[in-house]
Amino acid sequence: MSEYYVHPKALVETERIGAGTRIWAFCHVMSGVTVGRNCNIGDHSFVEEGVSIADNVTIKNGNCIWKGVQLKEGVFVGPRVFFTNDLYPRSGRMASVGPRYDDESWLEATVVGRGASLGAGSVIIAGNTIGEYAMVAAGAVVTHDVAPYALMLGNPARARGWVCRCGLKLFFDEGSAMCGTCGSRYRLDGGSVVYLG
Amino acid sequence: MSEYYVHPKALVETERIGAGTRIWAFCHVMSGVTVGRNCNIGDHSFVEEGVSIADNVTIKNGNCIWKGVQLKEGVFVGPRVFFTNDLYPRSGRMASVGPRYDDESWLEATVVGRGASLGAGSVIIAGNTIGEYAMVAAGAVVTHDVAPYALMLGNPARARGWVCRCGLKLFFDEGSAMCGTCGSRYRLDGGSVVYLG
Amino acid sequence: MSEYYVHPKALVETERIGAGTRIWAFCHVMSGVTVGRNCNIGDHSFVEEGVSIADNVTIKNGNCIWKGVQLKEGVFVGPRVFFTNDLYPRSGRMASVGPRYDDESWLEATVVGRGASLGAGSVIIAGNTIGEYAMVAAGAVVTHDVAPYALMLGNPARARGWVCRCGLKLFFDEGSAMCGTCGSRYRLDGGSVVYLG
Repeated sequence: MSEYYVHPKALVETERIGAGTRIWAFCHVMSGVTVGRNCNIGDHSFVEEGVSIADNVTIKNGNCIWKGVQLKEGVFVGPRVFFTNDLYPRSGRMASVGPRYDDESWLEATVVGRGASLGAGSVIIAGNTIGEYAMVAAGAVVTHDVAPYALMLGNPARARGWVCRCGLKLFFDEGSAMCGTCGSRYRLDGGSVVYLG
Repeated sequence: MSEYYVHPKALVETERIGAGTRIWAFCHVMSGVTVGRNCNIGDHSFVEEGVSIADNVTIKNGNCIWKGVQLKEGVFVGPRVFFTNDLYPRSGRMASVGPRYDDESWLEATVVGRGASLGAGSVIIAGNTIGEYAMVAAGAVVTHDVAPYALMLGNPARARGWVCRCGLKLFFDEGSAMCGTCGSRYRLDGGSVVYLG
Repeated sequence: MSEYYVHPKALVETERIGAGTRIWAFCHVMSGVTVGRNCNIGDHSFVEEGVSIADNVTIKNGNCIWKGVQLKEGVFVGPRVFFTNDLYPRSGRMASVGPRYDDESWLEATVVGRGASLGAGSVIIAGNTIGEYAMVAAGAVVTHDVAPYALMLGNPARARGWVCRCGLKLFFDEGSAMCGTCGSRYRLDGGSVVYLG
């Protein structure tokens, strides 16, 4: 007996929606979609058939979550992020593309790890994994896998630092960092960030 | 006696729509628009008065097709591509812009050639022509004309290779290429790609 | 006794709207918003609670105007510009973000000065001011304050010239420029553009 909110101007064609989730005006959530608990899906968003969204996910306005995109627990999707699921898109209605779209072998997955943030208007090229708690800056274009806790900037996006689980930037000194805001501690171990608590 | 589909949540103000075309939820297609046969226009798209769209065109979600934009047969417009039609936009409501918007001399055209693909969130500066079967990568910003079959990347977009009519990358050896996927053959002739069949 | 137009497919929850303003299909303007006179808000736009928009502003389609964004008189917001108001966004539903979203200390303002233009798909990082009559090119990513009359290009955006109040490019000769289109005159004084009339 799930209790969730759907704005009267939204079009929601699934009932697999967790308690506490809110879906706002002019959204279209297709049938065959699963949305977790305590999520928020902003106005003018679209969620395609077959997508599964975990708990505590924030999806800001104007997003399209395509088949093949996996959003893990607590992900933040900024305004109008660009997901993709086809690396060589063509209009399937053209004879010259032949049988490419006869099955789903064209479909490339994207995985966005637990707690990661994707900034406004960032572009996520399909086939890549965004590590947990990574932060992709507004306007960045992600063309390869992103390490957990990495801060990514630019087109193409490059790693330019590290961020805390709470979102603030981390500064490592001899391989150790403590977040000045929330007090979480981290170790930098062979180029990877390890959360200590 | 055209047979096409309009989603009940769409607003379509023209009847000049070809057979087999589908227009999805929360779209707004204005009066004075012509849409060809067998097209698909995704949710939350807008097509402005005066636009003419050819057959077999795929328009993904959230697009705005402005007056001045020409989409030829079989074009693929990825999610929320940015078309433009004014190189020096101002709020026409300001006295300081004077008579600039009294007529349509400000309006710059964009032509997207047969079978070309525009990736998610790419930006197409008005006044340019995208050659047939070209592919603009997601997030690229096109600031000049694009050659047929060219693959364009980055901001500003640069040509970084060639693609087949089916969408896959071409590799030329002594001026000749055969697509490893569909078998089409091409010749590179003075910097231009020629389709051989 | 204000006279303004709201399209029947729009959702407008405020009555603080100036005379002559038009709000188009599938827009959502929240309660607590103030919109000035003679504005135009294109289809599929969203204006968040608490926003105040001045007179003569043009907002093209698909925009999200968040709390914290100030649009001064005569601003032009191109199609789907990316405003932001949180420099370190996280899903506030995650326990690990702690008390960050308990108050509004996370909220960063953006000010867009009188007569400025923001091109299609440009990204405006919060905490910055766009000077009056500046022009941000389509696809540019603004990461710092922008000088009045500056033309900004690229990711990150750099100043690449100056523009007239009417929108056209200015060419300075020994510190003086006259717009070839509208005849306005300017002086370049210590790196700043001064309007002479």
